[in-house]
Amino acid sequence: MNATFMHGNSAIGNEIMERLHLLAQYTEQDGMMTRTYLTPAHRGASGQIAAWMRDAGMSVRRDAVGNVIGRYEGSDTHAALLMTGSHFDTVRNGGIYDGLLGILLPISCIASWHQQGLRFPFPIEVVAFSEEEGVRFKAPMLGSRAIAGTFEQRVLKHIDDHGVTMLNAMKNADLDPTQIAAAAALPDSIAAFVEVHIEQGPVLLNEDLALGVVTAIAGATRYMLELTGIAGHAGTVPMTMRHDAAMAAAEFALYVEQRCSRIPDLVGTIGQWEIPNGATNVIPGRVVLSLDVRAGEDAERLAAIADITAELDRICVQRDVRSSLKKTYETSSAVCADWLQQGWYAALERKGCKSRSLPSGAGHDAMAIAAISPIAMLFVRCGNGGISHNPLETMAMEDAALAAEVFMDFVEHFDALGSAKNSALSSRNK
Amino acid sequence: MNATFMHGNSAIGNEIMERLHLLAQYTEQDGMMTRTYLTPAHRGASGQIAAWMRDAGMSVRRDAVGNVIGRYEGSDTHAALLMTGSHFDTVRNGGIYDGLLGILLPISCIASWHQQGLRFPFPIEVVAFSEEEGVRFKAPMLGSRAIAGTFEQRVLKHIDDHGVTMLNAMKNADLDPTQIAAAAALPDSIAAFVEVHIEQGPVLLNEDLALGVVTAIAGATRYMLELTGIAGHAGTVPMTMRHDAAMAAAEFALYVEQRCSRIPDLVGTIGQWEIPNGATNVIPGRVVLSLDVRAGEDAERLAAIADITAELDRICVQRDVRSSLKKTYETSSAVCADWLQQGWYAALERKGCKSRSLPSGAGHDAMAIAAISPIAMLFVRCGNGGISHNPLETMAMEDAALAAEVFMDFVEHFDALGSAKNSALSSRNK
Repeated sequence: MNATFMHGNSAIGNEIMERLHLLAQYTEQDGMMTRTYLTPAHRGASGQIAAWMRDAGMSVRRDAVGNVIGRYEGSDTHAALLMTGSHFDTVRNGGIYDGLLGILLPISCIASWHQQGLRFPFPIEVVAFSEEEGVRFKAPMLGSRAIAGTFEQRVLKHIDDHGVTMLNAMKNADLDPTQIAAAAALPDSIAAFVEVHIEQGPVLLNEDLALGVVTAIAGATRYMLELTGIAGHAGTVPMTMRHDAAMAAAEFALYVEQRCSRIPDLVGTIGQWEIPNGATNVIPGRVVLSLDVRAGEDAERLAAIADITAELDRICVQRDVRSSLKKTYETSSAVCADWLQQGWYAALERKGCKSRSLPSGAGHDAMAIAAISPIAMLFVRCGNGGISHNPLETMAMEDAALAAEVFMDFVEHFDALGSAKNSALSSRNK
Repeated sequence: MNATFMHGNSAIGNEIMERLHLLAQYTEQDGMMTRTYLTPAHRGASGQIAAWMRDAGMSVRRDAVGNVIGRYEGSDTHAALLMTGSHFDTVRNGGIYDGLLGILLPISCIASWHQQGLRFPFPIEVVAFSEEEGVRFKAPMLGSRAIAGTFEQRVLKHIDDHGVTMLNAMKNADLDPTQIAAAAALPDSIAAFVEVHIEQGPVLLNEDLALGVVTAIAGATRYMLELTGIAGHAGTVPMTMRHDAAMAAAEFALYVEQRCSRIPDLVGTIGQWEIPNGATNVIPGRVVLSLDVRAGEDAERLAAIADITAELDRICVQRDVRSSLKKTYETSSAVCADWLQQGWYAALERKGCKSRSLPSGAGHDAMAIAAISPIAMLFVRCGNGGISHNPLETMAMEDAALAAEVFMDFVEHFDALGSAKNSALSSRNK
């Protein structure tokens, strides 16, 4: 291991850490990190990010959904651009690294190039996406969807917990909702989108690796499942005469666990589990539970779901319990472009940094941008068991510094990477 | 099968059914059967019951906790009495047969004897217990405990949902709480207590039997169990790295089901199951569940609990999940006296009625009275799958009529039964 490399550029690392902590002050709730779409805290963070972008030598604009876009002009101002970035909203009582790292890291890298007078043939745009978590208006990825041209007008009618519509919240924040369509990137204007993000999981941590290359953002299917048996008195109905909805649910849950454990990149979670009006002395007649299944490969996810629903039917027949399974969400996986993954690996190798590939089980802005551009992601290790969306979320300065070093190397070789890919493509097309 | 016997005394059966429906009008909630301690509905029912007792030839008194006691004097006014009865309060949105049957059935039987001028050597007291369900003040069996002398003064401080203390509720209902101790029966004043009650379960229904003889009122142990694993992102933590509290709970639940299924009279129920702040996309870090284990034989219950807690420890070690198990309630079983059970069997046989013995998984007033008297219970079949504590609770007129026939036969032979038991005891003591 090369100690210099493993510590990265500590000046940039320190700057990133300082700014992460500075931005954490823009919160809605004292003592907690909560910054939801278009609140005063959110608008404050937006202004601070714009200021840092300007300091780094970028021109800055704000689009109709509040994305803050810093542009580091290329020597060819008309070349397809390299887009990078992440989101600056948070979940309620979340962490300070989620999203923000992917904004502050490239800003610091660009500042370094700017100080050196270094300019690339292509423009770089750093996008601070205004909304990804979907907390305030129950609609996620508003920022990246606007740029991808997939923003759905109907979400403008969504209301927050105080009855404020998204439309009015935008107007109050001096945004012009009639201009959302104009926020979409022009076709073929983006050569690639790369996102640096904390892993939000324990994989890198457990393997003692600082960085990882994302293969795909997992596709996901979510269900709400209602099991209906027969409620009864906990003392008077013999075990053999019961149709206990909770026991059916328990059997189902263990099958989900067992089935999803068969394949490394497949996960299945029962995160909600409720016995409505349950009482100690009543056999549960009804249970409501959620099911979330994800995999980097869509075929693996769909095969697991087929097995899980078949097992559900078997359990229900055997226990004489009814089931109602409603799909609430489904999205295919977004595959990271091979040539961009190769670009990360080349940079990691040049920096002497061991790494591994892994899928992203969490959704990211890159997922929306995949509609209009090749995407790739670099994951940075989390501490504390990999916990995220939680005040216990952590990331080491050294890891941020190393990620910045690798990111800079990646960008510095991006033009050659793109040319190699293009010539490979054109020779294939011949 | 003798058709006459199987239909019992339909005049008495009809009267019981009519009165059950009349009493159902005394409810706190329109369209629901809810009658909790000392509410106007409760006091109305109390007055109506007292009136029917008087019509049946009984003298009536109300004690300090609101029990309504009808006494059908014996030819020997000083003889130990045969006590019978049940409760006239209900759960919220309950049924109309639970408790009430055991009050109205003996009233109608006594009315019949009274009309015939029949009097027994011993007095009979029908007790309409004022409180058994524990709904309003979260303290059950207030009526039977007062008579058993086990009423706890501290429950007088309990408050209802409106902040009214039990003490004040009693004063408002013209009861004198200073006289509760005086409500206790004198030592040796009760020869036996027998309670007629709907089964509240499906056993008799499934075996096509109208009546059953209770062997024991099950002992019960209740726990609240908290399982603590590690919360995490549903997409980012591989299955092999999880410490999912809900999966540990599912494994635990299935063990409880399997262990309790080994023995016919043993039951185990997980009626509450909550993932606090559970979300579809979060691996459960904490689950809270209830456990209720009951058996007619205390040794069976205690052996099951030993196995269940050992398995809980094993699951927690294997999954690296912590558990906290708190016992919230425990009561030993109340065994029905052999000689009284024999009395029921003899009466059933004389009436040509097939029957079976079964434990009572539910608690009953007889459980409290067991502290001062031998007890026994006769169960009457429920319809609708045996459901109770529910508006769907039913009982057939024919079954009530048959139960009345058997009850009358039992009482008519009670003196001989008591003498036989006493001479058996005295010869054993020689």
